[in-house]
Amino acid sequence: MQTWRLYLSGEIHTDWRERIRAGIDEAGLPVEISSPVTDHGLSDDCGARIFGTESDPFWHDRKGAQLNAIRTRGLIAAADIVVVRFGDQYRQWNAAFDAGYAAALGKSLITLHEPGLDHALKEVDGAALAVARAPEQVVAALRYVIHGQLDG
Amino acid sequence: MQTWRLYLSGEIHTDWRERIRAGIDEAGLPVEISSPVTDHGLSDDCGARIFGTESDPFWHDRKGAQLNAIRTRGLIAAADIVVVRFGDQYRQWNAAFDAGYAAALGKSLITLHEPGLDHALKEVDGAALAVARAPEQVVAALRYVIHGQLDG
Amino acid sequence: MQTWRLYLSGEIHTDWRERIRAGIDEAGLPVEISSPVTDHGLSDDCGARIFGTESDPFWHDRKGAQLNAIRTRGLIAAADIVVVRFGDQYRQWNAAFDAGYAAALGKSLITLHEPGLDHALKEVDGAALAVARAPEQVVAALRYVIHGQLDG
Amino acid sequence: MQTWRLYLSGEIHTDWRERIRAGIDEAGLPVEISSPVTDHGLSDDCGARIFGTESDPFWHDRKGAQLNAIRTRGLIAAADIVVVRFGDQYRQWNAAFDAGYAAALGKSLITLHEPGLDHALKEVDGAALAVARAPEQVVAALRYVIHGQLDG
Amino acid sequence: MQTWRLYLSGEIHTDWRERIRAGIDEAGLPVEISSPVTDHGLSDDCGARIFGTESDPFWHDRKGAQLNAIRTRGLIAAADIVVVRFGDQYRQWNAAFDAGYAAALGKSLITLHEPGLDHALKEVDGAALAVARAPEQVVAALRYVIHGQLDG
Amino acid sequence: MQTWRLYLSGEIHTDWRERIRAGIDEAGLPVEISSPVTDHGLSDDCGARIFGTESDPFWHDRKGAQLNAIRTRGLIAAADIVVVRFGDQYRQWNAAFDAGYAAALGKSLITLHEPGLDHALKEVDGAALAVARAPEQVVAALRYVIHGQLDG
Amino acid sequence: MQTWRLYLSGEIHTDWRERIRAGIDEAGLPVEISSPVTDHGLSDDCGARIFGTESDPFWHDRKGAQLNAIRTRGLIAAADIVVVRFGDQYRQWNAAFDAGYAAALGKSLITLHEPGLDHALKEVDGAALAVARAPEQVVAALRYVIHGQLDG
Amino acid sequence: MQTWRLYLSGEIHTDWRERIRAGIDEAGLPVEISSPVTDHGLSDDCGARIFGTESDPFWHDRKGAQLNAIRTRGLIAAADIVVVRFGDQYRQWNAAFDAGYAAALGKSLITLHEPGLDHALKEVDGAALAVARAPEQVVAALRYVIHGQLDG
Repeated sequence: MQTWRLYLSGEIHTDWRERIRAGIDEAGLPVEISSPVTDHGLSDDCGARIFGTESDPFWHDRKGAQLNAIRTRGLIAAADIVVVRFGDQYRQWNAAFDAGYAAALGKSLITLHEPGLDHALKEVDGAALAVARAPEQVVAALRYVIHGQLDG
Repeated sequence: MQTWRLYLSGEIHTDWRERIRAGIDEAGLPVEISSPVTDHGLSDDCGARIFGTESDPFWHDRKGAQLNAIRTRGLIAAADIVVVRFGDQYRQWNAAFDAGYAAALGKSLITLHEPGLDHALKEVDGAALAVARAPEQVVAALRYVIHGQLDG
Repeated sequence: MQTWRLYLSGEIHTDWRERIRAGIDEAGLPVEISSPVTDHGLSDDCGARIFGTESDPFWHDRKGAQLNAIRTRGLIAAADIVVVRFGDQYRQWNAAFDAGYAAALGKSLITLHEPGLDHALKEVDGAALAVARAPEQVVAALRYVIHGQLDG
Repeated sequence: MQTWRLYLSGEIHTDWRERIRAGIDEAGLPVEISSPVTDHGLSDDCGARIFGTESDPFWHDRKGAQLNAIRTRGLIAAADIVVVRFGDQYRQWNAAFDAGYAAALGKSLITLHEPGLDHALKEVDGAALAVARAPEQVVAALRYVIHGQLDG
Repeated sequence: MQTWRLYLSGEIHTDWRERIRAGIDEAGLPVEISSPVTDHGLSDDCGARIFGTESDPFWHDRKGAQLNAIRTRGLIAAADIVVVRFGDQYRQWNAAFDAGYAAALGKSLITLHEPGLDHALKEVDGAALAVARAPEQVVAALRYVIHGQLDG
Repeated sequence: MQTWRLYLSGEIHTDWRERIRAGIDEAGLPVEISSPVTDHGLSDDCGARIFGTESDPFWHDRKGAQLNAIRTRGLIAAADIVVVRFGDQYRQWNAAFDAGYAAALGKSLITLHEPGLDHALKEVDGAALAVARAPEQVVAALRYVIHGQLDG
Repeated sequence: MQTWRLYLSGEIHTDWRERIRAGIDEAGLPVEISSPVTDHGLSDDCGARIFGTESDPFWHDRKGAQLNAIRTRGLIAAADIVVVRFGDQYRQWNAAFDAGYAAALGKSLITLHEPGLDHALKEVDGAALAVARAPEQVVAALRYVIHGQLDG
Repeated sequence: MQTWRLYLSGEIHTDWRERIRAGIDEAGLPVEISSPVTDHGLSDDCGARIFGTESDPFWHDRKGAQLNAIRTRGLIAAADIVVVRFGDQYRQWNAAFDAGYAAALGKSLITLHEPGLDHALKEVDGAALAVARAPEQVVAALRYVIHGQLDG
């Protein structure tokens, strides 16, 4: 059976990735999960710590962002399905950027956010094949997509 | 001489598009400018007004977002250069989505925003070939790219 | 201003193409319209009449279908927007085939059909950016997409 | 030896998939079979059951169709050969849509239908590399394609 | 109206290109015709005459073939329809090579040859959308493809 | 270590494929070999035998050629390196077609033929990265390409 | 008649571009010439002068190089033929980079350099369809490619 | 866990590849390393030794360069990340060519060179996602990209 590759983009301050991972494990789905580096500090400083410090924060950020891009672009390009999570806090422009990037590559896109963000995310949702409200819905969708099964 | 196609994505509440357009006109650059529909109300309601009202705002938004996508995806795909403007207000996830979409298509990306947004936009800037602070810098960059000329 | 290329696929027994064409002319939209050969008899017999008759109707049809494909695939590939019309009669598998072909090429897809066909067309509609009920809605959508204008 | 990936699209009310599967098993062919969800009720309701009910059947259908699209587009894109079955009943526009989608992606297409549908399917057949009348012919074709062997 | 780009590959010792050109002119079709250099001697020696002689005929041929490739690949890539003519004489492997090249790029392919070559050309014909026996059939096909018209 | 996929196209009446296979086996190279069906009679008749006889040899050939195309196009698309062998006999237009098809897909092309065919094959050779005279040279090239080793 | 787009990459300290341009003008060839910005100082400083100075020369260079890339990548992607000139002085890694970039995009590549550089440039020449020693040879090649004519 | 494919292009006279390999082994990273043939003499002479000697060194080089291209293009196309090393000696145009080739294919590019080469390499660095000064930094970057871990 084919393994489905899932990339989990977006919010890093809640446990939504863990809930999706737990659900996939519990259901025994043949899914290989990948994600960006979710340690905020590491993600910010990785470039400067490996390749040398920068006095200007703009270039400090650039070094980190481009090193992270080696990871994220590679994983999105390899993914079958990209889930993008938007939370209430922070601007999360990188999540929306990933969504656009995935859409242009023809990946199946699932967004995950509260109804309160619907209007602000209407363009992103309009490019998605599903809009989920809870991580468990993502797991249920994967189970259906892979096995054609629904609960109860 | 080749005409360069420029798509102007993002913020719709300030005059940055007009300033770029005026600068291009003044410099006589062979640039064809396109942009999303920038009338906020029209952009929100276009789908429902043409194809019929929806009681659920989620689907009201969907109809509008997908009708707008006919315009925006067509114009981004046809563009040589995509400028994405981020302002202080609103979440502007559609701007970041456009940036990701353009990047995945291999378009030359220029971002336009204040330094105060640098950290939040570091992934988007990392995919761009230039980060501008003012519309006039975008015009100067276009003049250089097209004619190889700098001011003074 | 950019000219938008529109391909009109599907039903050939009603006047929907003429109504779209009249609306585009009236609105003065910069749209170049193309369509399959809509003379049913010609479309069936073109291959055999040009390249020689076939005793087996299967190959008679093949010759015609592949000659028509030179036209239709070329025009769909060149189109920005593909409108696919489904009527009450006939199976119209070629219309659905064109819709799938256009979707895979990343064209903006608009379907045009009565609500009574919604359930049967749900997969095709799910790949479309708009579902219209009348040719005049297609014209209104094009006017919005191109000029950002809505009626009164 | 290479495994060939086969996607079986179309009619869900007869046993043609089982007959192909049985034939492949019997011949021991290195073929990995995939297909859409063939439980009609599940396929219709999956979206609403996972992501929430809709009062309007149009959006109920949309949610289901797009969730199914995550499965079908992923599997067609991964397939080497796509078989599309048309039966006497139902309009099966999704089957023709899949055929067009597969053709535009350059997949090897095999159609499977009775001669009575030949004229209605001439465009789809014209894009196919083989037209089969029985599931056993599909199996024989696969055996030939993979092993270069024919029966007795 | 769209101009169709036609590339005429293959045999250079008969007047088939002139007959197609005359027919297109007479019918007033919006077709832009291109072809390889059909002066046999020039085509063989162009590389050595421009870039310097070679003592080894193998490299003499290489220089010429690759210079011709700048022309032929560019024109095939730009073509909508590629006609490949096979005659009785010579091996014409470059014609078959062009046919394969055009097929892989998704161009609409028309072959033009006598029935006596059918068996030897079955793979090439199998990739073509039409098999013509006379240049006038190619013109008639183009007229149908472009205008949807057949003769009397 | 990566496995290299090799497709062997062309002449079916000499033992060149066996000599390449034996050389690869002897050298223990990680190469997966594929080829068209090389039984001439099967290859001609496969379509008619599986899908039904045809009274017209043209369509008999078409059925066979297109069934073979499922195999050959799939294998060429999956190949890293395509070797095309031309012999003294037969027109072998399908070999030249495969070469053009492989070249357009960006595959590494190696031709294999006697010097006596050099002039007739100059366009095909001009698209190749190597021209071999003997199967053993192909094996030596593969050994070098994969392991960076030369004999003695 | 089709206009051919020519991009002239590489050395900026001799008059080779002018000689090609003069030859094209004299021959009246339908060629549209483009090139990088050839004013060395402007090319180095453009980024910093438009977008602001940098204290670190590494980022000064980065700003300029990426602004130039908007021009060069756009023009190479639009070109039919890319000529890359290597001179005796400087490392000219950007010329070799452009050659690799053009080759991967499938552009027709012509190199232009003295025989003394042959060995050092063998990989680049191996990806080219012609190796010229003088600008006038490039003009003669273009005249042949476009008009099928040779001098005297 | 996914295996990352790394291609190491450029300088062949220092031990940088060994240091990267040792670092990857020590860190136990799931990385598959590939590289060009790094034996200078073999790399120069491989074509002539396998396919026959050439009296003209230009064609001697051509034969070798194109045989090497079978290896290098195949491996670059298969790579996720391409590291290009530039040293103080030699012109290394093939390294810059590889960088351009990899960039056009959308590979993640890392350059590795001393600060003294920064200005000469600014265009290549501008296309890279990271610029390293030591092989150990490349290993650290890979460790971060794959595992999201940094040292102490």
